[in-house]
Amino acid sequence: MRRMVCFVSDFGLDDAWVGVCHAVMLRSAPGLEIVDMSHQVPPFDIRKGAAVAAAAVSQVPDAVHLVVVDPGVGGSRDDICIASRGGTLLVGPDNGVLLPAVGRAGGVDTAWVIDETALGLPEPSATFHARDVLAPAAAFLADGGRPDQIGREVEPGSLVTAPFGGAVLDGDSLVCEVVDIDRFGSVRLAVTPIDLARIGGRRSSRVEVSFGHVALLLPLATTFSDVPSDEPLVLWDSSGWLTLAIRDGSAAERYGLVPAAGVRLRFPA
Amino acid sequence: MRRMVCFVSDFGLDDAWVGVCHAVMLRSAPGLEIVDMSHQVPPFDIRKGAAVAAAAVSQVPDAVHLVVVDPGVGGSRDDICIASRGGTLLVGPDNGVLLPAVGRAGGVDTAWVIDETALGLPEPSATFHARDVLAPAAAFLADGGRPDQIGREVEPGSLVTAPFGGAVLDGDSLVCEVVDIDRFGSVRLAVTPIDLARIGGRRSSRVEVSFGHVALLLPLATTFSDVPSDEPLVLWDSSGWLTLAIRDGSAAERYGLVPAAGVRLRFPA
Amino acid sequence: MRRMVCFVSDFGLDDAWVGVCHAVMLRSAPGLEIVDMSHQVPPFDIRKGAAVAAAAVSQVPDAVHLVVVDPGVGGSRDDICIASRGGTLLVGPDNGVLLPAVGRAGGVDTAWVIDETALGLPEPSATFHARDVLAPAAAFLADGGRPDQIGREVEPGSLVTAPFGGAVLDGDSLVCEVVDIDRFGSVRLAVTPIDLARIGGRRSSRVEVSFGHVALLLPLATTFSDVPSDEPLVLWDSSGWLTLAIRDGSAAERYGLVPAAGVRLRFPA
Repeated sequence: MRRMVCFVSDFGLDDAWVGVCHAVMLRSAPGLEIVDMSHQVPPFDIRKGAAVAAAAVSQVPDAVHLVVVDPGVGGSRDDICIASRGGTLLVGPDNGVLLPAVGRAGGVDTAWVIDETALGLPEPSATFHARDVLAPAAAFLADGGRPDQIGREVEPGSLVTAPFGGAVLDGDSLVCEVVDIDRFGSVRLAVTPIDLARIGGRRSSRVEVSFGHVALLLPLATTFSDVPSDEPLVLWDSSGWLTLAIRDGSAAERYGLVPAAGVRLRFPA
Repeated sequence: MRRMVCFVSDFGLDDAWVGVCHAVMLRSAPGLEIVDMSHQVPPFDIRKGAAVAAAAVSQVPDAVHLVVVDPGVGGSRDDICIASRGGTLLVGPDNGVLLPAVGRAGGVDTAWVIDETALGLPEPSATFHARDVLAPAAAFLADGGRPDQIGREVEPGSLVTAPFGGAVLDGDSLVCEVVDIDRFGSVRLAVTPIDLARIGGRRSSRVEVSFGHVALLLPLATTFSDVPSDEPLVLWDSSGWLTLAIRDGSAAERYGLVPAAGVRLRFPA
Repeated sequence: MRRMVCFVSDFGLDDAWVGVCHAVMLRSAPGLEIVDMSHQVPPFDIRKGAAVAAAAVSQVPDAVHLVVVDPGVGGSRDDICIASRGGTLLVGPDNGVLLPAVGRAGGVDTAWVIDETALGLPEPSATFHARDVLAPAAAFLADGGRPDQIGREVEPGSLVTAPFGGAVLDGDSLVCEVVDIDRFGSVRLAVTPIDLARIGGRRSSRVEVSFGHVALLLPLATTFSDVPSDEPLVLWDSSGWLTLAIRDGSAAERYGLVPAAGVRLRFPA
């Protein structure tokens, strides 16, 4: 069975890097379906890369996800492949960028360090592992190749940890951080439906959101249209994170929230 | 017969939305040819989305055009499909964004409100109709499906109107608005070859352009090279709109013109 | 044999131009693999377009490279096709934008001026040769067509020259210019491995870099990880140019270097 390759990177679209990786994959697997998820991750921003990859994995779990945000390229960090318990395959550097996505897909089942000689590849260049190792590995897997043919298994606990943590229960509150700001200024929080169930907030219709000196009591809504234009709300974003947003506006701008900021949530009965 | 899907949105390229829609379409119709026309429409800018879609439709009339600029997602607005008299199929929200493109393709022949249950789809999410309804509908149509299988017909007159109007004859002038500014700063006016024929300007070699306190007498040219570098001219842009431009420069900057600004044109004999 | 088409332009992604060219190529050669190398070349910037095309050609030499940066569209400049000695095919305007890429692929073997009537095409529009001539020519060649069927041969010496020159030996130094700044702020210099061999610098482990009032003695390294974070180095970039960079930082910002700036290099034994 052939899989799609979903591709996330911080390469941007000004240079030929993304195209070169496409060409490498198409040459080894003609007709391969390659879907660009985003290449506009800011340079070296492992957090944002991980957030985009997590959204991509929740929505296309049956693909091979190639994720390249790699400040350490050419150094001692490994190129890895992870198979999740849910059956998703992910390829990228061992710097934590894959782990939030793996969490969405059931957690780590098995992890391998990729060995380019097993792929029949020449010695990789020191500056472009995406072209020389990661893209070829993704194409090999998408074409039906088995991960244990291109790497040696490693202990999941030895992998570099994720760039952001999950929500933490603190009394009757959830304490979490801002994962990511989207194009429309909506603020994605590191809260999943499982977190909400743990704190018994699934039937709440309102949520108290506090950060810095701000405390807001907002509707826990289904859709933007549940509030008038320019009003704030909290809802489940299509990314799968609980999201603070403003209808037809930017919550990030209004509240000055940025990635990694801390936020506290309470769900009144 | 299979059609291409041409895709316009305001999703930007920072997040995974565009890729997720591609993946949804490729999963339901493997090998489908999806052409990205632009995803850089500014957030919620129905006018710019309509302008890009109109250009795409004039140049690829035999495709299915998927156009998603959708400030009202999750609200009461409908998802629609339109078949134009010229045979183009268009899919998008009922907020006027499809209509200038339909105008380029012969006008509305039939319109349908899409019913996601007829597509065999689950209840759509409240925030991502593009993934849950519009992209699947576009893939269904591109793969040869009939629009009357996925929706109920609606009166064309009941659709939400277009975000900008056509040119109006006023004595010996055409009064029109600025549709759009392109990357090179050229100013596209809502004037079509039919408008020019109506006012008898097809043989003119010059055009008087006035707005605010500015009045210019400019060559009505065939190509940028008809004037020296840095000089203004009016010509038919590849978008199909009459366009005010500066060779090797930006007319929008020089004249301070923005979308929706009003412009008056006269065509001396 | 079918080839991929690699596509570089200054069209940007705000308008439908890139998509329209894709649609034109897919219509004439269904299933064609089109790889976008970059469309973010700044408007009319022949230098940057040539730099991106050169990187694309070194990495995908067996493709047809379509390169459209064309300030003179509609004027008297020709549309051309070049076959390099290395077997690469390139299509674009005759303004020098193809030549650095051709240099990477062995130099010009044969050059043709494209004749759209030989392609069975209608008279091209004056403003969009990419759609009307260049993209159809690229698709024809990718599909196995012969260049001599669509054009008449021209003397390579009659082509417009490249937008930047190669490195020049000056005593014990190489004098070169800045080709391009990449997304990460690395500064690519017009120096190739052959230049380095000429000056006997292949075994050097350090390089003296001078420009304006600045003189730096830097490691000639293999990879970013050869120096600590925030430290400068010189290395071979994946683009194939010798590159001045800062690990995890921007050399262009720190040193104020811009494209076309002059730089002098010495390689101490």
